[in-house]
Amino acid sequence: MAPQYAPSLRSRLPLVTFLLETTFLLLFVFFVKIEQHEPREFDQKTFIRLYAEFQDIHVMIFMGFGFLGTFLVRYGFSGSGFNLLVAAMATQWAVLMNGFLLPQRHHNGAIYINMKSVIEAELCAASALVAMGAVHGKTNPVQLLLMALVEVTGFVVNQWIVRTLLHADSLYSIMLLHVFGSLFGVMASWVLHREKIRHEKPEKEKTDSRTGLFAMLGTLFLWIFWPSFNSAVVYKKWETGLKLRVIYGTYLSLAVSVVIAMSISMLSSSKGKMNMVHIQRSALSGGVAFGVAMTAVQAPWVAMMIGFFSALLSAMGFRYMKSHMLFAFECHDTCGVLNVHAIPGILGWFALLFLRLASTESTIALRFAVHHICVLLITLCMSLVMGIATGLFLKLRIWRPQQYRKCFDDQAFWEFPHLVVKL
Amino acid sequence: MAPQYAPSLRSRLPLVTFLLETTFLLLFVFFVKIEQHEPREFDQKTFIRLYAEFQDIHVMIFMGFGFLGTFLVRYGFSGSGFNLLVAAMATQWAVLMNGFLLPQRHHNGAIYINMKSVIEAELCAASALVAMGAVHGKTNPVQLLLMALVEVTGFVVNQWIVRTLLHADSLYSIMLLHVFGSLFGVMASWVLHREKIRHEKPEKEKTDSRTGLFAMLGTLFLWIFWPSFNSAVVYKKWETGLKLRVIYGTYLSLAVSVVIAMSISMLSSSKGKMNMVHIQRSALSGGVAFGVAMTAVQAPWVAMMIGFFSALLSAMGFRYMKSHMLFAFECHDTCGVLNVHAIPGILGWFALLFLRLASTESTIALRFAVHHICVLLITLCMSLVMGIATGLFLKLRIWRPQQYRKCFDDQAFWEFPHLVVKL
Amino acid sequence: MAPQYAPSLRSRLPLVTFLLETTFLLLFVFFVKIEQHEPREFDQKTFIRLYAEFQDIHVMIFMGFGFLGTFLVRYGFSGSGFNLLVAAMATQWAVLMNGFLLPQRHHNGAIYINMKSVIEAELCAASALVAMGAVHGKTNPVQLLLMALVEVTGFVVNQWIVRTLLHADSLYSIMLLHVFGSLFGVMASWVLHREKIRHEKPEKEKTDSRTGLFAMLGTLFLWIFWPSFNSAVVYKKWETGLKLRVIYGTYLSLAVSVVIAMSISMLSSSKGKMNMVHIQRSALSGGVAFGVAMTAVQAPWVAMMIGFFSALLSAMGFRYMKSHMLFAFECHDTCGVLNVHAIPGILGWFALLFLRLASTESTIALRFAVHHICVLLITLCMSLVMGIATGLFLKLRIWRPQQYRKCFDDQAFWEFPHLVVKL
Repeated sequence: MAPQYAPSLRSRLPLVTFLLETTFLLLFVFFVKIEQHEPREFDQKTFIRLYAEFQDIHVMIFMGFGFLGTFLVRYGFSGSGFNLLVAAMATQWAVLMNGFLLPQRHHNGAIYINMKSVIEAELCAASALVAMGAVHGKTNPVQLLLMALVEVTGFVVNQWIVRTLLHADSLYSIMLLHVFGSLFGVMASWVLHREKIRHEKPEKEKTDSRTGLFAMLGTLFLWIFWPSFNSAVVYKKWETGLKLRVIYGTYLSLAVSVVIAMSISMLSSSKGKMNMVHIQRSALSGGVAFGVAMTAVQAPWVAMMIGFFSALLSAMGFRYMKSHMLFAFECHDTCGVLNVHAIPGILGWFALLFLRLASTESTIALRFAVHHICVLLITLCMSLVMGIATGLFLKLRIWRPQQYRKCFDDQAFWEFPHLVVKL
Repeated sequence: MAPQYAPSLRSRLPLVTFLLETTFLLLFVFFVKIEQHEPREFDQKTFIRLYAEFQDIHVMIFMGFGFLGTFLVRYGFSGSGFNLLVAAMATQWAVLMNGFLLPQRHHNGAIYINMKSVIEAELCAASALVAMGAVHGKTNPVQLLLMALVEVTGFVVNQWIVRTLLHADSLYSIMLLHVFGSLFGVMASWVLHREKIRHEKPEKEKTDSRTGLFAMLGTLFLWIFWPSFNSAVVYKKWETGLKLRVIYGTYLSLAVSVVIAMSISMLSSSKGKMNMVHIQRSALSGGVAFGVAMTAVQAPWVAMMIGFFSALLSAMGFRYMKSHMLFAFECHDTCGVLNVHAIPGILGWFALLFLRLASTESTIALRFAVHHICVLLITLCMSLVMGIATGLFLKLRIWRPQQYRKCFDDQAFWEFPHLVVKL
Repeated sequence: MAPQYAPSLRSRLPLVTFLLETTFLLLFVFFVKIEQHEPREFDQKTFIRLYAEFQDIHVMIFMGFGFLGTFLVRYGFSGSGFNLLVAAMATQWAVLMNGFLLPQRHHNGAIYINMKSVIEAELCAASALVAMGAVHGKTNPVQLLLMALVEVTGFVVNQWIVRTLLHADSLYSIMLLHVFGSLFGVMASWVLHREKIRHEKPEKEKTDSRTGLFAMLGTLFLWIFWPSFNSAVVYKKWETGLKLRVIYGTYLSLAVSVVIAMSISMLSSSKGKMNMVHIQRSALSGGVAFGVAMTAVQAPWVAMMIGFFSALLSAMGFRYMKSHMLFAFECHDTCGVLNVHAIPGILGWFALLFLRLASTESTIALRFAVHHICVLLITLCMSLVMGIATGLFLKLRIWRPQQYRKCFDDQAFWEFPHLVVKL
């Protein structure tokens, strides 16, 4: 039998991107302006601070997520390349969506580009990249692109619902990006790939000493700049010291979670060896959990405890739950986003609930708890339903999904010179 | 026939670098001082901003260009190592040249080192590194070093001519570094290697899944920090919002150009596959083109249009023009600097001309157009003539040029342990 | 004979890290608070500057040192992974040690976390990472962790002695981290591994074209951000321009040392080829030497001279002294920390002595010289004695040291999928 080639995307991807990019361009022509400041009014200090924070997040989105996606042996080009494509499109779309839905619009109907809007657009793009982690290696770039745009739309709508109906804190609602993105992605992956994945063990789904180091690079960029990621959305409360607490808390939480992730990875291995992929991801769980709980944390040791337990759950999840998910529910989650983003995110939600209840009077506490539970339930419903719907939409033949045997392989999408195979 | 070894540079490189470094040291002893500020006078805010911008550019020059040069399978050590050597020397020389020629000299004849002078020196070094891209892999480090110093000299002289005689804007004259550097390099490469390069297909001139990722790292560092690269030279006009416009405009231009580069790369491939090397370079063309046109761009969609068309031209150039250049003109341009820097740079020049003409009265417009055309013509002449002269100078036997069969190979310059070849 | 496996650390590492981390957590509960500022009092400018500097150092510690440790062919996971583990623990411990011993404690007995305390904690962690370089590849993570904590303790005690008894400058005492860390590490390595290392040539102790580039990444992160590393501890003397002098001086010193390192590496090779490992390390020696001497350097050319001679000594040391050390003293120094940190550090000490003597009156000069010599002698004694004691402690069977044949090999500690070996 002749070898089957992956279906060519030549007639799909350029068309889809040209159409989308042209649409974005037209929307930018009519709605988007660059914010101009009066010389006197303009606060140079704020600009310097925001530009530095923006760059930290910029590095995390494009370098961090990009190189974290290179961990598979034969999927490095796609891992970093598609991340670049999807993040660049998702950011443009998120600027528009945030501008239309969330109250950042200035008078006269225009959306203004400023550091704040770009930072929040990149956080929305981050939630799409988290979702991408679950289907990593099993989808083509057209599917990824469409999935990311739907995810950003869903996440912004969820933020709007939660803020408008439940008057949730904007800091906390944006940090739900981890829970929203990961559940959305896991559901999409579940719908897209339910048949063969349990029977055929994908032999290309592994890491080696080379790709493990490239992925380490991604992990470190995320790990190092995570304090900026969590603190960047703290604009107004600067005076109360919240920003500083968030920076130091994220730092300590991450420092503890990397230590615990390595210990658990070795303890839970029968041969007493650590697993690089598990560590690279569990080390980040402290930042996720602290990000959700950050508004209520005062003491440094509380941040360290959050890091401790999130890494504990995350590393155990990688060792025991990931394969269980595949066999029991036929759900394959390539990057383990459930263990890195969903579970630590929900842990952070519980930490926030507990810390708030402990520090509030009982009458207000009950009301807070009800609101808080509603926010989580709405977010869970939104992400699960939209994830399933997106999965069904992406299953359409028109998007030319890959055969399963071509998964996790750069050869389907990238030109390689002939001689390289020999090396 | 016994294998021919590459000629040893042991008697050349150390001598040349010691002589040059000693000369630089002596010039620093007599002419260069570190700028000291009066405590009260000193503007701490400006320093913080400039230091952050300097570091972004510092990362671009040494990490970005360095790792972009590692894309060839067997030329990674030279790609990153020679970049480090040449950039370190070129920066020292550019501090001196800028100090002597451009009006940054303080009274009493001394050249003062401050953030501004170091930033501009690194931009001059960038133009030398662009030129190096055209001869990448085909020259030894002594040739690279001499070429870089001549290029920096030429570029600073060109800036001086254009600013003094034609009163060109300093922002715009420094952004011509892309056009100057790339044409200089292409001419030097044309003169240096005209005979064999068409007949012997260099089999080492390819990329693999490993070096492609290292080059991706370089691309991303350049792509992420490009907004600082373009905005760093905007000192005085801070108040008018130009700096902010440049930052957001570069960001948007690059976001669009990466999307278009990937689409064109897939569309123009017969198998519908993307080419990693083309994408890594074309993704940057939006930053080049916007950098030249930046002073005249007001609306975000104009920046996006510039990114759109520069990536379009650049990606098409990689696919169709690069091999054509080799066969028709015997001109081999390893990194395709013509398609990344020269063509998008000239596109930016046209965009600036058009935008200025559209927003100016007709009487002044004509005068501007004449000046503007003269600036480009002078820059083109200077770069072409100096590139050819440098090529002829570097062809001298005294610099021990490599045989063609030793091109693109680290073995000529670097010690490797014996066993590595087996891997 | 059946292959001998490395002794499993499953019963050691998790236990040790859990105990240590729990102890740290308890100490944080009782002693550590996050510094809160009064809204008016709080100096936002200082915070912005310090946060940027902290991040530069953060990148150096985790990315720089981490990737510099990936240069061995089969030790990349351990090189970067153990660096992450040890640095995360050492930083927490250094926050506590600095708080208890050095005068940063506020009233009411609490240790406050602020940018200053985190920056200084990471500098202490840096001294532990320097020490780790000498035993790189020959120790298991439990040994590394214990060694790092002892080293941090010793270094903080040394700082306390030198500052309290000899009233040494705090800037200068903290920059002795290079001398202290490297001698501590070399002594520990000497005690730990004296028997077999001379006879069995470790064949895994080499670099290849892939790991050389990963190490280049580490070198570049250190090289680029070193100006922040040296200047970060200059808090009070901002007004006098010392901070600016340190930034520009470090920059120039490093620019010269990279040029000289490459020249010497080629000149001293019989085949006229450069050695990537030597260059990557000697290029940094200028930053080390200038860091020790920085308070006395005024002119840029003095900084360049320091860079010149430190790279000269360092590159010659790599070529001639490293193997000599092994054969004459049975002392194996994997990363050559003696040539990168100890010798340039002592060179910087001499430069400081000479520059101070040249600019002071003779009566004060003598007193300064005596003090200055005492500081070095105390530091040398402390580091040598503590290094030997630590080596003896780590030799205990209870820590399950590796057999020598399992050195420099990731397989002892990390899970690898089976098929990877074939690649």
